Amino acid sequence: MAAPVREALHFPQLSISQIDPYIPKPGVRHPNKPYGRPHVTLTFATSLDSQLSLVPGAQTALSGPESKAMTHYLRSKHDAILIGVGTAEADNPSLNCRFEGVGGYGGEGLQGQPRPVVIDPRGRWRFTAECKVLKLARGGKGKAPWIFTMAPIDDERRELLESVGGQVIVAGPQPSTRRLSWGYILDELERRDIESAMIEGGGAVINDLLSPRNIRFVDTVIVTIAPTWLGQGGVQVCPKERVENGAKVPVARLKDVRWVPLGDDVVLCGLAPRD
Amino acid sequence: MAAPVREALHFPQLSISQIDPYIPKPGVRHPNKPYGRPHVTLTFATSLDSQLSLVPGAQTALSGPESKAMTHYLRSKHDAILIGVGTAEADNPSLNCRFEGVGGYGGEGLQGQPRPVVIDPRGRWRFTAECKVLKLARGGKGKAPWIFTMAPIDDERRELLESVGGQVIVAGPQPSTRRLSWGYILDELERRDIESAMIEGGGAVINDLLSPRNIRFVDTVIVTIAPTWLGQGGVQVCPKERVENGAKVPVARLKDVRWVPLGDDVVLCGLAPRD
Ligand SMILES: NC(=O)c1ccc[n+]([C@@H]2O[C@H](COP(=O)([O-])OP(=O)(O)OC[C@H]3O[C@@H](n4cnc5c(N)ncnc54)[C@H](OP(=O)(O)O)[C@@H]3O)[C@@H](O)[C@H]2O)c1
Ligand SMILES: NC(=O)c1ccc[n+]([C@@H]2O[C@H](COP(=O)([O-])OP(=O)(O)OC[C@H]3O[C@@H](n4cnc5c(N)ncnc54)[C@H](OP(=O)(O)O)[C@@H]3O)[C@@H](O)[C@H]2O)c1
Repeated sequence: MAAPVREALHFPQLSISQIDPYIPKPGVRHPNKPYGRPHVTLTFATSLDSQLSLVPGAQTALSGPESKAMTHYLRSKHDAILIGVGTAEADNPSLNCRFEGVGGYGGEGLQGQPRPVVIDPRGRWRFTAECKVLKLARGGKGKAPWIFTMAPIDDERRELLESVGGQVIVAGPQPSTRRLSWGYILDELERRDIESAMIEGGGAVINDLLSPRNIRFVDTVIVTIAPTWLGQGGVQVCPKERVENGAKVPVARLKDVRWVPLGDDVVLCGLAPRD
Repeated sequence: MAAPVREALHFPQLSISQIDPYIPKPGVRHPNKPYGRPHVTLTFATSLDSQLSLVPGAQTALSGPESKAMTHYLRSKHDAILIGVGTAEADNPSLNCRFEGVGGYGGEGLQGQPRPVVIDPRGRWRFTAECKVLKLARGGKGKAPWIFTMAPIDDERRELLESVGGQVIVAGPQPSTRRLSWGYILDELERRDIESAMIEGGGAVINDLLSPRNIRFVDTVIVTIAPTWLGQGGVQVCPKERVENGAKVPVARLKDVRWVPLGDDVVLCGLAPRD
């Protein structure tokens, strides 16, 4: 391994040991999920009022530097990172891994770099050659993105994406004309040798995954909470209600929970419920 | 001290030592608040989606037994507990302290029992002799409630309240015709020798206190978070937005934060911001 580079992030061994039980092990299936689909880690950072950002379409710095280092550690342990097109548009995210020792940050090639995946049913992501994720791929510091869509992508963007090694995955018929089903997405990832995927947001994607019909696709949850209230009007994590026998019941309670204080924040690790 | 009684709750010394720095010390003014008003601790339990209950007007068991014991420990350290009338109506709360060693639970008289205070501007709390808080007062296991109101309370209820030692405090003219100001409430409590008050909820009261104009009345915050999402439609803690120079900014970020894992929950302790 080359000497650590300056931009690389470090996450202390003590914190790693606390979070590791919740991280997928390559080649080892999670007990929750004996079948073929990738292990899914749902992960994001919220305020105390369960918000991801102050205003829709803008990025809010919520968690501290330790949580950022953790996110990059987590990215180094997953084959893919998924986000919705809303986040791709709002954040111009890097979607690479800057953890010390991975490819581009002290390591060889693209070793340890996750595959960025953007879920964009209507093909509305207006990426250019200047988007961070494309620039990083061009510079050998991250993998090029895959885009899942149901709409045609114009030749210019497709060529741009393919020029850095990316791919457009046009979905066949779906149960809904507006959405890609998570079953379909995860099956396609499995076919492409993705064994573990970290779903990072944003609000619409997280709320959809936490909903009663989709929570079964999630294996583990890692949420960072920052000690701040953002106030009404931001992007909120609050899934649709769940009703059983005519009465409202909690949507999802995590199991095997661990709370790890990290700087000013706390990290909640848990397993998604299985009915 | 009498032997501990069966109903009394126990909170381990280790947990106490972690939370104690955030608890008011009798006779010692909080550095945040050198003036005369009582020390205010804002405390409540939420889900991950920042909700206090599944449906308005219903009580939801959110946090585990350890958190319950902590609440009673906190109650033993405050002179008063405040709630809004919405909570008094919804929960039929006990509002006493069942911590081992306080009066009625192993201790003498009403020593260590906080004063229940209900904020009921329009006099709509329909209490009867069967309400828990009145029964406990009658049985010597808690203090009788004080009710702050702007409306006349009928003689029958007033007499019932006074028969157990309670009191109706009818407010003079207020800045708003609908609300009691927190400055007024806290001044009146100070005049009645209340040095510390724990404000426990519910949603409307908490959101009002976290709002930009009222957060200055709060000294410390102790929030328990349970690892569950309740889903849309419950009572949510999410204060009004704060705008500065035309841009939305976070409403309140806590200082000197500590996260204390407690059973399946986490307890967040912090100081309210002072601009
Ligand atoms: N704090 C954090 O950890 C964090 C992480 C990520 C993002 N964010 C913030 O979150 C915000 C973006 O969130 P967002 O809700 O606008 O966007 P999003 O969830 O990233 O993307 C939503 C869009 O993705 C598409 N989509 C694909 N599959 C979907 C599904 N199954 N369910 C729902 N939508 C699906 C839809 O596109 P169509 O409408 O075209 O169909 C939908 O509008 C930004 O402010 C960003 O900064 C914060
Ligand atoms: N998880 C927890 O820790 C916890 C704790 C407490 C309560 N709860 C839950 O919270 C729910 C009750 O919440 P809620 O919002 O309905 O009731 P609430 O906050 O207890 O009471 C609200 C009422 O109090 C009066 N009020 C007095 N001063 C006020 C002020 N400054 N700002 C706002 N209101 C003021 C108003 O009465 P008028 O409308 O008559 O003016 C208002 O409608 C219940 O479901 C209860 O179980 C949960």
